[in-house]
Amino acid sequence: MIVIMEKRATPEQVQHVVARVEELGFRAHLSRGEERTIIGVIGDERPLSTEVLEVLEGVERVVPVLQPFKLASRDFKPENSVIRIGDVKVGGDEIVVMAGPCAVESREQIFETAWAVKEAGAKVLRGGAYKPRTSPYTFQGLGIAGLELLGEVRETVGIPVVSEVMSVTEIDVMSRYVDVFQTGARNMQNYSLLQEVGKASLPVLLKRGMMCTIHEWLMSAEYILSNRNYNVILCERGIRTFETATRNTLDINAVPVAKQLTHLPVIVDPSHATGKANLVAAAAKAAVAAGADGLIIEVHPNPDRALSDGAQSIKPEALQKLMVELRQIAQAIGRRIA
Amino acid sequence: MIVIMEKRATPEQVQHVVARVEELGFRAHLSRGEERTIIGVIGDERPLSTEVLEVLEGVERVVPVLQPFKLASRDFKPENSVIRIGDVKVGGDEIVVMAGPCAVESREQIFETAWAVKEAGAKVLRGGAYKPRTSPYTFQGLGIAGLELLGEVRETVGIPVVSEVMSVTEIDVMSRYVDVFQTGARNMQNYSLLQEVGKASLPVLLKRGMMCTIHEWLMSAEYILSNRNYNVILCERGIRTFETATRNTLDINAVPVAKQLTHLPVIVDPSHATGKANLVAAAAKAAVAAGADGLIIEVHPNPDRALSDGAQSIKPEALQKLMVELRQIAQAIGRRIA
Amino acid sequence: MIVIMEKRATPEQVQHVVARVEELGFRAHLSRGEERTIIGVIGDERPLSTEVLEVLEGVERVVPVLQPFKLASRDFKPENSVIRIGDVKVGGDEIVVMAGPCAVESREQIFETAWAVKEAGAKVLRGGAYKPRTSPYTFQGLGIAGLELLGEVRETVGIPVVSEVMSVTEIDVMSRYVDVFQTGARNMQNYSLLQEVGKASLPVLLKRGMMCTIHEWLMSAEYILSNRNYNVILCERGIRTFETATRNTLDINAVPVAKQLTHLPVIVDPSHATGKANLVAAAAKAAVAAGADGLIIEVHPNPDRALSDGAQSIKPEALQKLMVELRQIAQAIGRRIA
Amino acid sequence: MIVIMEKRATPEQVQHVVARVEELGFRAHLSRGEERTIIGVIGDERPLSTEVLEVLEGVERVVPVLQPFKLASRDFKPENSVIRIGDVKVGGDEIVVMAGPCAVESREQIFETAWAVKEAGAKVLRGGAYKPRTSPYTFQGLGIAGLELLGEVRETVGIPVVSEVMSVTEIDVMSRYVDVFQTGARNMQNYSLLQEVGKASLPVLLKRGMMCTIHEWLMSAEYILSNRNYNVILCERGIRTFETATRNTLDINAVPVAKQLTHLPVIVDPSHATGKANLVAAAAKAAVAAGADGLIIEVHPNPDRALSDGAQSIKPEALQKLMVELRQIAQAIGRRIA
Repeated sequence: MIVIMEKRATPEQVQHVVARVEELGFRAHLSRGEERTIIGVIGDERPLSTEVLEVLEGVERVVPVLQPFKLASRDFKPENSVIRIGDVKVGGDEIVVMAGPCAVESREQIFETAWAVKEAGAKVLRGGAYKPRTSPYTFQGLGIAGLELLGEVRETVGIPVVSEVMSVTEIDVMSRYVDVFQTGARNMQNYSLLQEVGKASLPVLLKRGMMCTIHEWLMSAEYILSNRNYNVILCERGIRTFETATRNTLDINAVPVAKQLTHLPVIVDPSHATGKANLVAAAAKAAVAAGADGLIIEVHPNPDRALSDGAQSIKPEALQKLMVELRQIAQAIGRRIA
Repeated sequence: MIVIMEKRATPEQVQHVVARVEELGFRAHLSRGEERTIIGVIGDERPLSTEVLEVLEGVERVVPVLQPFKLASRDFKPENSVIRIGDVKVGGDEIVVMAGPCAVESREQIFETAWAVKEAGAKVLRGGAYKPRTSPYTFQGLGIAGLELLGEVRETVGIPVVSEVMSVTEIDVMSRYVDVFQTGARNMQNYSLLQEVGKASLPVLLKRGMMCTIHEWLMSAEYILSNRNYNVILCERGIRTFETATRNTLDINAVPVAKQLTHLPVIVDPSHATGKANLVAAAAKAAVAAGADGLIIEVHPNPDRALSDGAQSIKPEALQKLMVELRQIAQAIGRRIA
Repeated sequence: MIVIMEKRATPEQVQHVVARVEELGFRAHLSRGEERTIIGVIGDERPLSTEVLEVLEGVERVVPVLQPFKLASRDFKPENSVIRIGDVKVGGDEIVVMAGPCAVESREQIFETAWAVKEAGAKVLRGGAYKPRTSPYTFQGLGIAGLELLGEVRETVGIPVVSEVMSVTEIDVMSRYVDVFQTGARNMQNYSLLQEVGKASLPVLLKRGMMCTIHEWLMSAEYILSNRNYNVILCERGIRTFETATRNTLDINAVPVAKQLTHLPVIVDPSHATGKANLVAAAAKAAVAAGADGLIIEVHPNPDRALSDGAQSIKPEALQKLMVELRQIAQAIGRRIA
Repeated sequence: MIVIMEKRATPEQVQHVVARVEELGFRAHLSRGEERTIIGVIGDERPLSTEVLEVLEGVERVVPVLQPFKLASRDFKPENSVIRIGDVKVGGDEIVVMAGPCAVESREQIFETAWAVKEAGAKVLRGGAYKPRTSPYTFQGLGIAGLELLGEVRETVGIPVVSEVMSVTEIDVMSRYVDVFQTGARNMQNYSLLQEVGKASLPVLLKRGMMCTIHEWLMSAEYILSNRNYNVILCERGIRTFETATRNTLDINAVPVAKQLTHLPVIVDPSHATGKANLVAAAAKAAVAAGADGLIIEVHPNPDRALSDGAQSIKPEALQKLMVELRQIAQAIGRRIA
């Protein structure tokens, strides 16, 4: 950390900061410029919040030097992590497409979608049993019945399943039916939940919060990793901005930025990132071109009748068509989609 | 709801929307303009998401007419709700100040602060036992030991206590030691948690998420109210914007806007809304002038040594001084602070 | 427009709104729902601001129905506009790459860059003579001397030139030396400037303001078009959000959204949209995959010595390498780069 | 400035940065931590952009130490600047209220408003002759005729006038009729305009751009000051955020932050900052409580008929009522309103 003192800071204030730095177990390195005195804090600063020093008299600002995440960082592990979901590998050369409905609605719907997305080339089925809905008055998911359908469909169709976990109390039961825990954007900083999925044995698909920076996203990954679950897949799903023409703003820059900062795989959800079925293909293609390791796409056999997220769901035949273009883009950048 | 059709929508598409509206149990009201056809959806639209109609062919946009929250709305209950915390009433003429440290750190710290804020005129003590921290490597709160200290301090000092609940598994134990559950900004859309505090018997202080709209905030209140806990206090604590000079941007407009939309009390947290001790007084005064029903302020006897949020904590003597000005502003707008 | 009345609006208030609507030359269409009365305003609403009706007693909200832009809209002109810059066509099947330094710095620098980007396949040279800099104390561009160099380089190298116009007083002199006026992000709503370039004869590259919605961007295009300059190229260059890891957030969704709303070509500036040379390639590839009609890329022969924007400038050899991948992506989506 | 090197930076890269720093005329101060090498740049860094060093190999980040503004800074001039507009002083103990219509619409309208706001206690009349409108199809202001009316009204009523300048070509003619140039939010970074008003002799009311940081706002002030016009009044008028319940988000924190950073007076525009007449009073009271040196409020005798901004204009009688409360709040914080 670097402590920048106010222009008018007194020698006593500087001395007090130095003493505090040393008391906290770090070494202090003083540098006097023409207008400002700077104090370098030497040592592993990660357990220290900047505010511990910002609070001192005469301090103008404190600038962290090290990234606050460690296990998630590429400095810690330079080579890409490859996360296995059954036979599927996420984070290698192959780009993995996950697809399925927003929510499990019925046996017919989930079976029909599962067969269709598998045929189109998707390697993982998505589908929610517990749904975080803005309104308590709209469809909240089938719960256990939905999980049971997911368990059945993965056996019959032969495709692993990713589904959202909303509460620590659901972890045990979900473990029996799904292959990957998804933690939702609204829960990205629900640290109780992160800690518990960090103790669980399934991989975690960690969606970026719509209000969270890339650094905070990696800190949330760090919560999971530091609880010894090393199988984390990051998912960019759009952030909230002033723009209202789309449901969210796909932060496409986040893909190469995250890939530089971390060894974990990064995938993109073009459905939530746009909110409109007729924008999903463009966003998906952009994501692959930008270097994403995968996509998670909402597909529904009959979006007109979907109980949730119909407006952003594409039909199986649209997925099939999109996959053709995605394969060519993957090839153009030296990767592939099976 | 109002459905705005595309310019080029065909009569069949219009007819299909009308049929779907009626199938969903609503009446459709057609209006053909020079360039666009508009379909009014008549009935209680709250259980309907706009996406159910947006997904249909030929639809350009769907505009909700009714506010999606009902129990929280002033249309539903025109007069102000007054929430009781022991003898303290929040939402009446009197403006209530809550104060205390970010986190309970030790017996000495919490007792010293409690006595000091009570003397300054605060009516409720704040203090966290469970702390949501961005980094897993920084201080996470004392947990149960912190709760026990809070239970002790409220007995001895005679002041009710508000403290953050982070997980559904903490609700029972916390009920024994605290008077108000605080749900944090990062958990504003943790619906599992909202539902459970909605079933609990203590009042809930619902902090606004840092990137949640006022409407979403009221929808989160609706989750609690619809589970039959009617004692909800809303707390504006700053939103996230592009501005980096302050930790958050205090959305002062949210105070009068929320007061117009809902009957629930609205308080302001000037500590998180600014992130800097030397801005807290200005923000607190602005909040009272704008019509807030209360304040929740971080106070620490020794911010230099605080284990969290030291930089935004003021000292007891600063609170005392601030209270004098707040009382005069309250008077200027026809309210009072005891 | 649709006027949504408050729940408690009186019949007199409704009548007053209807009378005002008719006085303004529109027809009013009344629809009474269970909780709200809705008044449809029939006629060409574009010259009417919503506030003219919002101000009336009993009105809760006014929702526009028509898009406020007309000449820019695809409803007005369904087929793509193709803008000619000398022999270069922007908006057709071919994707056009524009490249060059942030600012003209010297004869050597601009000539070296021009030859290099032309060889790499760029069709238009970019380079600023007038530079909008946040600080009055940093390099402000060479002015007229820079323009003269641009005029020379386009003759000798045989490549058309795009350069930023910052003031109405520069339009005449610039017309002699450049082929396209660029209006900068900070001037997107400088309506005096838009009107004057709207009266000029050269095409305009209209950069999106970092704080402006897609609708506002198209309204700024409308200012130019309505002054009878129909040669407008839209340029997405990143918007401002809460994310600080990159200089701006590339709004990749804006590409397909704008292409749906308008017939004008849409290009992307991956240099400003990221702010970092090592992110430019990923952003450029994403833009082409998402359907952009072109790119404008900062290239400098020696970024280490650039007087501005060095950190986001790539070297000519990096451009050459990028062009190879871009050509393959263009092909993958059925377009081409010469 | 402080240069933070990458973890893997080589000694040669460090040496290269040091050499470049010295070549640029600064001294370099090296500090090697456990994980990172830090290079302090000693000297007046203001003419140096961070990008000049960021571009070098092995550099991770560059952190500015000094504030980039100089003449505007409180370090440069510790005591408050008081700007005179005729007999009115802005920036002293007295809080100054400016009021008037969005636009000059007619002789009757502007005279009626001028007399009314003067009677209510406003010291300066606002009114636009040139209007920046999002749409080219809505009312654009009366232009010269509007200026002439303003000139007439200030003579007859005896009140100084502030009005917006949109183009460098309007400066001369406006100088004859108005007392303060207002530069609008959309032109906050129109540097050509800032430079020209910096050379003019009237005070400048510099509105903050809706997506500009406080630092950028002060840099725009620096453009004016560095051209030797020292009479700059800063005006916070709301920023753009994700919240759509209000037209803008009043950044109330900006008032105390700006007052700490600069000696220039800071006023608030509660009309644009909210966009709704029924929120103006709350925002105005908050601004005064937070320490604003003045207010600029839209007042119209008949908002129902206003040609622009009717929805956010209050009536003269509402201003009169508001002034009573504002006077009491001013008193509560030790200031006054005449």
